[in-house]
Amino acid sequence: MSESRLEKQINFIVEIDKVKEVIRQNFLVDGSRKENDAEHSWHIAVMAFILQEYYPEKVDLLKVIKMTLMHDLVEIDAGDTYCYDEKAVIDKQSREQKAAERIYRILPPEQAVEYMALWAEFEECATPEAKYAAILDRMQPLLLNMKSHGKSWKEHGVTREQVMQRTKVIRDNSEILWSVVEGIIQEAIKRGYLA
Amino acid sequence: MSESRLEKQINFIVEIDKVKEVIRQNFLVDGSRKENDAEHSWHIAVMAFILQEYYPEKVDLLKVIKMTLMHDLVEIDAGDTYCYDEKAVIDKQSREQKAAERIYRILPPEQAVEYMALWAEFEECATPEAKYAAILDRMQPLLLNMKSHGKSWKEHGVTREQVMQRTKVIRDNSEILWSVVEGIIQEAIKRGYLA
Repeated sequence: MSESRLEKQINFIVEIDKVKEVIRQNFLVDGSRKENDAEHSWHIAVMAFILQEYYPEKVDLLKVIKMTLMHDLVEIDAGDTYCYDEKAVIDKQSREQKAAERIYRILPPEQAVEYMALWAEFEECATPEAKYAAILDRMQPLLLNMKSHGKSWKEHGVTREQVMQRTKVIRDNSEILWSVVEGIIQEAIKRGYLA
Repeated sequence: MSESRLEKQINFIVEIDKVKEVIRQNFLVDGSRKENDAEHSWHIAVMAFILQEYYPEKVDLLKVIKMTLMHDLVEIDAGDTYCYDEKAVIDKQSREQKAAERIYRILPPEQAVEYMALWAEFEECATPEAKYAAILDRMQPLLLNMKSHGKSWKEHGVTREQVMQRTKVIRDNSEILWSVVEGIIQEAIKRGYLA
């Protein structure tokens, strides 16, 4: 009984290794290559505890960190949907729901339920924890894009309006982090990184 | 005042991007390439909450996760010291201490103190949190080595005795996780992955 439960957990740990091979559109800070989902998830989880003081609402930090670490697992099956790809965004939800059903169900039942619910909460972006996790998820690629001289933005012809739309959750929920993001967007336009 | 504090935090977040380029000796599960420190840290942080029930002592899980996410930052300067490289292990401590002084001090003073102390606690491996983090840190590459057909063990001629020594913290602290590790070691010998 106990062994079969543990086997499921080990199988899950082995399965999610694949997230290291899901490639995102943004580059590392040094521009050498594109980032993968495991690296991105690691980075925003660290940001969660370094920047917590700037999120005005009280949050369960452990819950935020679990969300940041797990939110991209669905991309093992569904692939990374580039946030500025309007066509791909259309069926993103159904592709990711199907992926979540398969991947989280590798876990023992009550852990599967817990982590699927956490992923759904992140996607709905309504609770303080989900909003704070979304802020980090939007802010990290912005920092990396800026530091890598807008390489990914230029590659895809991304506009100021698209970034403003994408970072709305930051503008609406953290005045101080928004001041950082606003500064980056202005500088990116000045330098010709954003159209 | 507040802005300069935030600048330090942003500088730290940008600096630690480099950990994505510190390459470890073990391969990904599919054997396609070696893993980096950010991916490894992400993986063991997820393991921390999936496997917590098998660590018998009460732990502050948030503290364990912070340890797992941050423990390899010193390798940005000190490089990855392969655990079975007896020569490199000799001056590992002094190299990493120097690295910690530089990297953590990019943060505002009280965060620098907090995270340096957390790293030192992990290295000393005396508290329940540090022991549990060490268990995860030793168990994850073992799983990846086994799944990638012992590619890294064979490359370095690693022996059963070396792995037994390296996994001692698991044997001493978690009967159930040790049963998994013991099974992997026996299977690895049978298949000729370990000398």
